[in-house]
Amino acid sequence: MPLAEICSLNSQFTSQTPRERVRDAIARFERIGVAFSGAEDIMLVDLAVKARKEVCIFTLDTGRLHPETYRFLEKVNTHYGIQIEVLFPEGAAVERLVTEKGLYSFYKDGHTECCQIRKVAPLQRKLVSLDVWMTGQRQDQSSTRKTLAAVELDTQLGEDRPLIKINPLFDQRSQAVWDYIRVMELPYNPLHQQGFVSIGCEPCTRPVLPHQSAREGRWWWEEEAHKECGLHIINTP
Amino acid sequence: MPLAEICSLNSQFTSQTPRERVRDAIARFERIGVAFSGAEDIMLVDLAVKARKEVCIFTLDTGRLHPETYRFLEKVNTHYGIQIEVLFPEGAAVERLVTEKGLYSFYKDGHTECCQIRKVAPLQRKLVSLDVWMTGQRQDQSSTRKTLAAVELDTQLGEDRPLIKINPLFDQRSQAVWDYIRVMELPYNPLHQQGFVSIGCEPCTRPVLPHQSAREGRWWWEEEAHKECGLHIINTP
Amino acid sequence: MPLAEICSLNSQFTSQTPRERVRDAIARFERIGVAFSGAEDIMLVDLAVKARKEVCIFTLDTGRLHPETYRFLEKVNTHYGIQIEVLFPEGAAVERLVTEKGLYSFYKDGHTECCQIRKVAPLQRKLVSLDVWMTGQRQDQSSTRKTLAAVELDTQLGEDRPLIKINPLFDQRSQAVWDYIRVMELPYNPLHQQGFVSIGCEPCTRPVLPHQSAREGRWWWEEEAHKECGLHIINTP
Amino acid sequence: MPLAEICSLNSQFTSQTPRERVRDAIARFERIGVAFSGAEDIMLVDLAVKARKEVCIFTLDTGRLHPETYRFLEKVNTHYGIQIEVLFPEGAAVERLVTEKGLYSFYKDGHTECCQIRKVAPLQRKLVSLDVWMTGQRQDQSSTRKTLAAVELDTQLGEDRPLIKINPLFDQRSQAVWDYIRVMELPYNPLHQQGFVSIGCEPCTRPVLPHQSAREGRWWWEEEAHKECGLHIINTP
Repeated sequence: MPLAEICSLNSQFTSQTPRERVRDAIARFERIGVAFSGAEDIMLVDLAVKARKEVCIFTLDTGRLHPETYRFLEKVNTHYGIQIEVLFPEGAAVERLVTEKGLYSFYKDGHTECCQIRKVAPLQRKLVSLDVWMTGQRQDQSSTRKTLAAVELDTQLGEDRPLIKINPLFDQRSQAVWDYIRVMELPYNPLHQQGFVSIGCEPCTRPVLPHQSAREGRWWWEEEAHKECGLHIINTP
Repeated sequence: MPLAEICSLNSQFTSQTPRERVRDAIARFERIGVAFSGAEDIMLVDLAVKARKEVCIFTLDTGRLHPETYRFLEKVNTHYGIQIEVLFPEGAAVERLVTEKGLYSFYKDGHTECCQIRKVAPLQRKLVSLDVWMTGQRQDQSSTRKTLAAVELDTQLGEDRPLIKINPLFDQRSQAVWDYIRVMELPYNPLHQQGFVSIGCEPCTRPVLPHQSAREGRWWWEEEAHKECGLHIINTP
Repeated sequence: MPLAEICSLNSQFTSQTPRERVRDAIARFERIGVAFSGAEDIMLVDLAVKARKEVCIFTLDTGRLHPETYRFLEKVNTHYGIQIEVLFPEGAAVERLVTEKGLYSFYKDGHTECCQIRKVAPLQRKLVSLDVWMTGQRQDQSSTRKTLAAVELDTQLGEDRPLIKINPLFDQRSQAVWDYIRVMELPYNPLHQQGFVSIGCEPCTRPVLPHQSAREGRWWWEEEAHKECGLHIINTP
Repeated sequence: MPLAEICSLNSQFTSQTPRERVRDAIARFERIGVAFSGAEDIMLVDLAVKARKEVCIFTLDTGRLHPETYRFLEKVNTHYGIQIEVLFPEGAAVERLVTEKGLYSFYKDGHTECCQIRKVAPLQRKLVSLDVWMTGQRQDQSSTRKTLAAVELDTQLGEDRPLIKINPLFDQRSQAVWDYIRVMELPYNPLHQQGFVSIGCEPCTRPVLPHQSAREGRWWWEEEAHKECGLHIINTP
């Protein structure tokens, strides 16, 4: 029963390091998967692969990622000798959206509809096979994530099909993540060396100025409060 | 009955201009569609839209196009006030390929498998609704297209389901196409101003040097004779 | 007599804002000039021009700046309706260096020799006409600037030809400078939106990763302690 | 006496290959130099170095070249084990122009004044030490070069100080030059793989579309007839 586990895990994780959280989560749950976005959450991938090389790592190829991100995903495969599971949107749904509204409808009526087809639906098809999923979300990434917990109850598949969502990096500062990436010499998305901080789909991501908040590089035409993709919508009450 | 029509059309088209060919084809066939690749075949789109604005124009979004190409497709929609039909690959097929072989399998075992999933299958799902399709293919594009005819019998849906394939630009030189684009001030893919001549998927396209053949910018790790995507494989005996 | 003035100015500036420092310095000294590097010290230019539009602003065109920086300098001219004085290296000196050692000698034997010819010598030719110069240096820019004062005695023209060097932004954090740039909607060098933080000559500047120190983007093949160009060498004991 | 020599050389060169022309010119004249622009005239450099490794090769660093061109010049040095002589404009002249008229005056009143300071004057300082200079000019490069001869009388230093100017590639087509570069695997300016054909200073050079004339990538805001830099102004009557 998730709720008790979530409370207990949250207590346990509070005093642990990210590495211990990832290790324990992978040891404890069988049907667990790691969501990788192709950005600085490479740190999570690194911790997971080192905990158990065969762990399931998946990514959402929306069909609109930067060429640099595709190359980075492949580089991660090669670097760790793993095979990231790539989830792809349903063809008919994409065709319907872009034929009717064009390839940039999100600039006009918001990113929710496109994210739903290209990210949320493929994710949920994957989550059906899992009990637990891990993400690289952090409290310092945006105002909508400020109170993010280490472990959450995720009911996106329905109240009667609860999932556990674990955010092992929830309390890590961006600085700490980047220190880890550099000291451990992890591969990183080359866009991070071109002014990009937060990285998502190509048309919905842009580089930021020095000291500009990471989230200003995403869905910049929308209100801060709506800048959460459907994946983590549970955070935005 | 296609074969007779094909012979008759081929005769007729020989003495006609591209504009007349497109106009006559659109006037004659009801279930006709124009395949647009997002490159210099914008000339074909221009001729088709001017012949009948409501003509069906479709493009193959493989999920790996250049960001510049997506923006160009949208620009064409806006420029002509049309809505290009976007065909997208089947999610499950893409997922299977890239999860098993990675995102760049074509560099190792050729582009056929990936093209089949991302281009040929979506195209054929579309062709089922058509009797005739038009393309921007030209004889001067590559050695495999040197004897390209104005009109072809296309049996890719089966011998018992013949299609007519029309190539109204078959005898046009690259120079003539570009003269048209510039004189008529058509929109063009900005990649054409960055050294790209032939444009396809991002990982399978590269800019060429001055005087390098257009086809050297495509599938450059493969033999010239195999550099035809499944769409036009009928040309390569 | 500079020393007394320097002490008195330092006291005065401690409790003042950058704007007051610039205003007072420009009001007090006749032969004063502002050194502009084409980077985020645009804040200093903004303060200076608003204090007195005719103030002398000069920049060092080393002959190796980024195209983006040249365009930015021109944009600043247009934005403020001013004419930045551009200092250029002596032809014979550059010819001697690059013909003998090539165009990238600094990668082999350090940036001092090249900086001397392209930056220091032109600067000193200009300083001869001034009593006081202002720069955009800040304490938080590098370890060599940690104890930077608001006002310094500058003896680079000789002990008997002392200059006053004023750093009105000495105590400003990078964050504050960028807040000013954005709130006041100043023009900025587009390289700042491509991952560049500190900006100098093209071959000696590179973009940095998130949270990487600004100075790691400059002369990265040299020791931190030597990463000061001759202009401000007085800071590095 | 130049004129006789010029006639005789022109006759001789007519039936020779570029390689023979370069070889004979270098063998015949002691005070001869090769002007290298950092573009596809790398073919001329190749022929010259192979004829006599110690031949004088010089280039005009205007202070506004593309970063890619500087890197290419260095690559040529390394590739051939030579030391290209780099000519640089006189500091005071550049300072005067750009301080008074800004960094882009050529867009307003033409490229002549800037070319004079950054190209012609440094060239002429060099030519004083030569009797003969070779260039990579070709008839097919622009309408102003259509009747270019293999050998010309160059009186830019004065009627009483005639120079011989040799253009060993005068009759070569762009295609032939590029075939040579590719077959011989010469290093080339990477801008040539980004849509640039003719390459000069950064602000005065732009990439062209397929089949656009090379010269449309240079000084595009000016009339074709004036698109000759002072170096070769003798061609434009």
